[in-house]
Amino acid sequence: MAGLAVAARAFSASASAGAGGVAMVQGASRGIGLEFVRQLLRRSDQGRVVATCRAPASAAELQKLKEEHAPGRLTVLPLDVTDESTIEAAAASIGETHGSLDLLINSTGILSIPNVIQPETTLSKVQKSSLLLAYEHMWPLLKVGGRSETGRGFSLVANMSARVSSIGDNGLGGWHSYRASKTALNQLTKTASVELGRKDNIACILLHPGTVDTDLSRPFQRNVPKDKLFTRDFSVQKLLSIIDNVKKSDNGKFFAWDGQEIPW
Amino acid sequence: MAGLAVAARAFSASASAGAGGVAMVQGASRGIGLEFVRQLLRRSDQGRVVATCRAPASAAELQKLKEEHAPGRLTVLPLDVTDESTIEAAAASIGETHGSLDLLINSTGILSIPNVIQPETTLSKVQKSSLLLAYEHMWPLLKVGGRSETGRGFSLVANMSARVSSIGDNGLGGWHSYRASKTALNQLTKTASVELGRKDNIACILLHPGTVDTDLSRPFQRNVPKDKLFTRDFSVQKLLSIIDNVKKSDNGKFFAWDGQEIPW
Repeated sequence: MAGLAVAARAFSASASAGAGGVAMVQGASRGIGLEFVRQLLRRSDQGRVVATCRAPASAAELQKLKEEHAPGRLTVLPLDVTDESTIEAAAASIGETHGSLDLLINSTGILSIPNVIQPETTLSKVQKSSLLLAYEHMWPLLKVGGRSETGRGFSLVANMSARVSSIGDNGLGGWHSYRASKTALNQLTKTASVELGRKDNIACILLHPGTVDTDLSRPFQRNVPKDKLFTRDFSVQKLLSIIDNVKKSDNGKFFAWDGQEIPW
Repeated sequence: MAGLAVAARAFSASASAGAGGVAMVQGASRGIGLEFVRQLLRRSDQGRVVATCRAPASAAELQKLKEEHAPGRLTVLPLDVTDESTIEAAAASIGETHGSLDLLINSTGILSIPNVIQPETTLSKVQKSSLLLAYEHMWPLLKVGGRSETGRGFSLVANMSARVSSIGDNGLGGWHSYRASKTALNQLTKTASVELGRKDNIACILLHPGTVDTDLSRPFQRNVPKDKLFTRDFSVQKLLSIIDNVKKSDNGKFFAWDGQEIPW
C-alpha cells in the first residue's frame, strides 16, 4: 500500500559473529536491553559485555547477572543519555578496560532533539542530540573495533526503533508523538550511518523487535494477535541473529525481527 | 539510489482552485509564508486570507499588504504555535469572521514533540504536539471548508517540509537535528492525513519549496547551483500550482516544488 519496495531478507540463526569481542548495551537495566545482555553473556565464554543504565546500583537484574558470570565478562556502568558527562565517563572507562567496541546496541531513551519547538533556530546553532553525543564519544572505540575475533570485519551500531516509525507503512494513524520520535531516530541513525560508514569501518542499523511483552508495549498489545506478542527471549534471539549476519552493505537499513526490511 | 519508487507528477499552473474561499497562512510574517500571503491576495479579488504570526504589530510587511488590499481580504492574527491559547483564539476569530477554512498552509515552527528525550514516557501520557493542537482547533473550520467556490471539493492542509527530511534520499549526512525535526514533521503530517482523511473531507500534504533564498536557507546555499537557488516568488508560484491541482487521492503525500513525489 505504501508503494515502497520492501525486501525480505533471510537471516540464518546459525552464525554468531558477535560471540567474541566487546558489546555495549545502552538502556540495559530492563526489557529488551536486559535480555540482550543476558543472551550475549550466554552465547560464548569469550564475549565481554558492557551494560549501561542510569542507576547501576539499583539495577538488581544486572548485578545478579554479573555475579553469575566470570569476573570481567560483564561491566555495569552508569550512563544517562541526557547527561554528556556520563557518556564521556563511560567511553573513557570502556577505553581503559577494553580498548575498543565491536557492537553498540542502543535499546531505549537515546533520542533527544534540542530546539525542536523552533526548527529554524537549529540551523544557526545545530545542537547535538544525545544520540550524536553517544556516537561522538563511542566513535573512537568503534573505529578500532570490529576485529577478526567477532567474525564481522566491521563495528556495528544497532538502534532499537519500531515499525510504527515507518511513514510509508503508516496506514492506521494514532500514536503521534511516539511515531514521530521514532521516525526522527530513524533519520538520525540514517544520517550517522552515512557519515560513519563513509569515514570508518562502522555500520549502523535500525531494528524493530516486534511487539514484545514489556511495560513499554502494554498500550499497544490490545490489537495484537497472541502469536504476534513475543517474549523478550524470542525477540532478542531474532534480533541477535540479524546482528550476527548483517553485512557492511546493510549500513543504514531498518530490519524487522524476521529480517524483513521496513520502508521509511 | 534509495531504491524507492519516485513518481513524477505534472502539475499545470493554469487552474487556481484556491482563488476563492478562505486560506490561512501560519508563520506569515516573513520568508515563504509572507510570499504565500502576497500571491494568494494577488490571484483573485475573492479569496480571503488569514495571516498568522507571533507578533502582528511588528509584522510591517503584513500590515502593508493589509493596507494595499480591500477591507476584509487580509486578516492578521497573533498565533504562537507553542501557546495553545493563541491557537484557540485564532480559530475562534476565524470561525466568527469566515465560518470555515478551505486551505491551511503551515509555513514554519509548527513542530514540537514533548517528552522526546524519553520516548517511553510518551506512551503512557501521549502529549499533543503543537501541530496536533493546530489541527484540533482548526479542524472544525476545515471540516466545513473545501466548498464549491474553491473548485477543490475538499479542504487542504499543506505543511512546509524540506527534501533533507527524506530518509531514503539521505545520501550526504549532516544537518542531523534539522533533518530529524523535519522527518518527524513528515510522520506527524502522515499520521494526521490518515486520521483526517478517514473521518472528514480534508487532505494533508507536505511540500518541499526547493532551496529558496531566505535567511533560513543561507547555511545550505553554499553547494547549491545558482539556477537551483530559487526566489521566494518562483518557489511559491510552483507550490501554489501544486496546491491548486492536488487531488483527494494525494492525501498524505510529499511533493517537491516541481510536483515530483519525494520518498520518505
